[in-house]
Amino acid sequence: MPSYTAPTKDLQFVLHDLLKVSQSDIPGYAELEADFTAAILEEAAKLAEGALAPLNMVGDQQGCRLENGVVYTPDGFKAAFEQIREGGWNGLDIPEEFGGQNLPYLMGSAVGEIFVSANMALNMYQGLTHGAISAILAHGSDAQKATYLPKMVSMDWTGTMNLTEPHCGTDLGLLRTKAEPQDDGSFRITGQKIFISAGDHDMAENVIHLVLAKAPGGGEGTKGISLFIVPKFLVNEDGTLGARNGVSVGKIEEKMGIHGNATCVMNYDGATGYLVGELHKGMRAMFTMMNEARIGVGLQGYAQAAVAYENALAYAKDRLQGRDVTGTKNPDGPADPLLVHPDVRRMLMDQKSFVEGARAFTMWGASLIDRAHRMGDKQADGLISLMTPVIKGFLTDKGFEMCVQAQQVYGGHGYIEEWGMSQFARDARIAMIYEGANGVQALDLVGRKLAADGGKPVMAFFEIVKGFIRENESDARLEGFLVPLKAASKDLQTAGMYFMEHGMKNPNDALAGSSDFMHLFGHACLGLVWAQMAKAACAALDAGAPDRDFYEAKLATGRYYMARQLPATVMHLARIRSGAESMMALAPEQF
Amino acid sequence: MPSYTAPTKDLQFVLHDLLKVSQSDIPGYAELEADFTAAILEEAAKLAEGALAPLNMVGDQQGCRLENGVVYTPDGFKAAFEQIREGGWNGLDIPEEFGGQNLPYLMGSAVGEIFVSANMALNMYQGLTHGAISAILAHGSDAQKATYLPKMVSMDWTGTMNLTEPHCGTDLGLLRTKAEPQDDGSFRITGQKIFISAGDHDMAENVIHLVLAKAPGGGEGTKGISLFIVPKFLVNEDGTLGARNGVSVGKIEEKMGIHGNATCVMNYDGATGYLVGELHKGMRAMFTMMNEARIGVGLQGYAQAAVAYENALAYAKDRLQGRDVTGTKNPDGPADPLLVHPDVRRMLMDQKSFVEGARAFTMWGASLIDRAHRMGDKQADGLISLMTPVIKGFLTDKGFEMCVQAQQVYGGHGYIEEWGMSQFARDARIAMIYEGANGVQALDLVGRKLAADGGKPVMAFFEIVKGFIRENESDARLEGFLVPLKAASKDLQTAGMYFMEHGMKNPNDALAGSSDFMHLFGHACLGLVWAQMAKAACAALDAGAPDRDFYEAKLATGRYYMARQLPATVMHLARIRSGAESMMALAPEQF
Repeated sequence: MPSYTAPTKDLQFVLHDLLKVSQSDIPGYAELEADFTAAILEEAAKLAEGALAPLNMVGDQQGCRLENGVVYTPDGFKAAFEQIREGGWNGLDIPEEFGGQNLPYLMGSAVGEIFVSANMALNMYQGLTHGAISAILAHGSDAQKATYLPKMVSMDWTGTMNLTEPHCGTDLGLLRTKAEPQDDGSFRITGQKIFISAGDHDMAENVIHLVLAKAPGGGEGTKGISLFIVPKFLVNEDGTLGARNGVSVGKIEEKMGIHGNATCVMNYDGATGYLVGELHKGMRAMFTMMNEARIGVGLQGYAQAAVAYENALAYAKDRLQGRDVTGTKNPDGPADPLLVHPDVRRMLMDQKSFVEGARAFTMWGASLIDRAHRMGDKQADGLISLMTPVIKGFLTDKGFEMCVQAQQVYGGHGYIEEWGMSQFARDARIAMIYEGANGVQALDLVGRKLAADGGKPVMAFFEIVKGFIRENESDARLEGFLVPLKAASKDLQTAGMYFMEHGMKNPNDALAGSSDFMHLFGHACLGLVWAQMAKAACAALDAGAPDRDFYEAKLATGRYYMARQLPATVMHLARIRSGAESMMALAPEQF
Repeated sequence: MPSYTAPTKDLQFVLHDLLKVSQSDIPGYAELEADFTAAILEEAAKLAEGALAPLNMVGDQQGCRLENGVVYTPDGFKAAFEQIREGGWNGLDIPEEFGGQNLPYLMGSAVGEIFVSANMALNMYQGLTHGAISAILAHGSDAQKATYLPKMVSMDWTGTMNLTEPHCGTDLGLLRTKAEPQDDGSFRITGQKIFISAGDHDMAENVIHLVLAKAPGGGEGTKGISLFIVPKFLVNEDGTLGARNGVSVGKIEEKMGIHGNATCVMNYDGATGYLVGELHKGMRAMFTMMNEARIGVGLQGYAQAAVAYENALAYAKDRLQGRDVTGTKNPDGPADPLLVHPDVRRMLMDQKSFVEGARAFTMWGASLIDRAHRMGDKQADGLISLMTPVIKGFLTDKGFEMCVQAQQVYGGHGYIEEWGMSQFARDARIAMIYEGANGVQALDLVGRKLAADGGKPVMAFFEIVKGFIRENESDARLEGFLVPLKAASKDLQTAGMYFMEHGMKNPNDALAGSSDFMHLFGHACLGLVWAQMAKAACAALDAGAPDRDFYEAKLATGRYYMARQLPATVMHLARIRSGAESMMALAPEQF
């Protein structure tokens, strides 16, 4: 069975060496001293390592089951969820008035990585609840906040997001679930929703569904959509639970992975729903949940790669097979450990350099969210809005790829479920699909975000890169970082220019390169954070930090990323410049 | 549930337009007229579509079970296997004296693709048998051939390969299974083998295990290894079955995929075994099986991608979601089909251009095997020996990637087992691991094959590329093929030069680039066959072939591969040239 040890040291490096959080001007960051964040991360690690990770394979093997309308989670999930609840983990970054601790979103993300690595399926019950809280916080009425938030923050009640229907996923304009206004101001919700993660379960008293439905008079397509709160049990005026609402689980889907999370078909049969925010403005409210959820899904991508890598590394150090061609390393043993072989190293260094880069990128993104939300910083808001599809799409594509590579390190054992490496790949696979499939992320990036606000956010990104290069070009130790970063950034700019020149005449010339652009952008972002981390590591070494090995490893890992991963930008650019012609050449009947 | 329609037309194109088989000087090829091969392929298609494909998901869901020492295959497997047996499919390319039809290996491969696409797990029972037949044909005594081959060709008896043990896979020198010589010339085999595909089942009277074991006096490591026939039931002098031998199934592994194939732990408890070939020369004999098996596994890689693509295409034509940004294509429907969206096209064209290229590459490889075996052609033998790790490693890495992409086309439905797309990815995943994990293929390619015979095979490959470019550079229609092919070939040569210059001083500088070299080589091979197919398509169009759509689609698909896939060679070359330094920089304790 795989094991898990939380990367608290590396998270501390990101928070303090890289982001220098306690020196930041973002409200609430001053208290994030190293001792304080270490205490939080250590506590999260204890829970994750001791209670959540040991249930990961149990969840995969048992899955959830539906019996007489009741959803049962795998053995042990209930007790572990109770521990998450008791620790108050769900309220970490929620305002105090609703029972939270009001810490920055950044801290929620750092803890989130640890929980997701330990047990992604279990963590999703919390993650969906957190997303629903955010939507109610942003768009709910004061009464709704008072009624639902405290119980949801404590996770006595959990939350869900209901968008997809059998005939429509991405294209929500097609949705058919209807909302009929009632005299008391409530609505009757009728329709079927599918792929509802954490749709129902036996770990909370109530489930608060956030449901997209069409109320009369809103017009065609997405314009007619509104957002509703539909509780599993209606809530009485005094806050106690009342009658069972007209919502039920049709079935639990059999999936490739995340078996521990109940992915439900939800049937709404005239269920009572309460409008959230404005009528017919449901899409905007839903996007509040989605944007947060997308960053959370990007985090899932690299968090699964992180735990998979950790196990692959342990196996490569332990498993004796073959000899180092440059000279035996384990003369007393029958063979050398796998780690001596260059191609095994390649796989491990790919994983390590991706995971550490992705971690830094995601935490930087989380700090931008804090800056945007806590300071109303428009530039930070534009930048994170631009990078959200990159975090979601690039980190989940690569995260899955890295899980597959970690599995590969195990050879035949990687294919056997008992070793647990297949589960990481199978679980990570969903992250490329849900919350907007990665093709939709690429479309969002190229079709919407790139030109948003007159292109200011993307120019701001280039300014950060240029500024960093300019400030540090005299530092010879960073040359191996700055040269490839400059090249990657130039490839990204060239791609952007290509879209501007060709996309106007033929939008398909831009869309044909959207996925490659997302990957190109992702590499440029990881190149940037690696250069920044290299600088931070040099600074720590200059300052005589005691753990030289850690900082030197950081530099070496970064050099690997720049040398071996960043050259992908050339390939992506070449693909982008080939445009839509060969891609769209075939008529449908020629396929 | 997915469907399957065999690509007989495209296989015919490869056999006749591209390889021009009936005009070949290879013995046995003259009879491969278009009508004859079409009849064979149509017959195989009928069986695959009607009997094998419908059982693919059944096999995945039920798996195999071990009860009281007996292995049971999924419902329907036995009857379908009987149909394969009755059709004489296993003997297609086996000499007539042992009950076969003596057709070229090429035809076995073409039929093989169809069977593997339809039901990979079921096909493996036949595939392993075929491999065991090849080993006995090449190394067995006349008596052994007479005793075992007819029954194995008819598949009344099936075969297995037993290499791996719990503590050793790639490093067979460590194996512990021992063979003790007996007075009657037989051996007593004792030990445990794991990951034995088709290790036991209820579809044949007997199972003939080919087992690697160490007999006394052979020295250390792989030198001491010999190959033995160990039948499940001993065979009497008259050919009837005798006593049960001392071999049993310890357990069936729970795997990520290919559930319909019983992957067994095999326990040998003093089982009677018969030496195949020379004592202590077992590795050589095993490689006869392995080389054929490796090409078969490469075929599995693209065959799974082929069926996954076929279903993804059908879904993309059927599923209505969103509108074509360049203008509505389905004004009467609620939305346009997925196929109109460039990023969906990208995924489908990636798959289509890979699958068709891989098919041509594999069939070219199969024809080289026929040339080598039937004509003793040393150059063909050298070339296929060089390309075997590329066929195995590149086609399975990419094949899996394409299955994942096909799954992605389905959005959320791709993750739900009921739709069957997860199974293609999970089944294809094993092909990257077994018969030598892909890292081992890369090592074989760079560490052994590249320098084999003074580098003659690789020079022969470059001559083929150069010759083709020279002969066709006046044809303007091929310009879009020849220019990228030339560039890819140059990248491959540059990589080879890098290895020569640096690998002598530091072998790790070559090994660090081995996987990238395998991929670079794979792209160059697919670039070559695409250029050749483009020429063949032009010729057919010039000759006024009636089905112009087919040939024009072939040209368009090829142009896509050249424009969008071949640029990967630049990235692989850059990685190769970064050498081993950053890859090997970390000390084990720094990870």
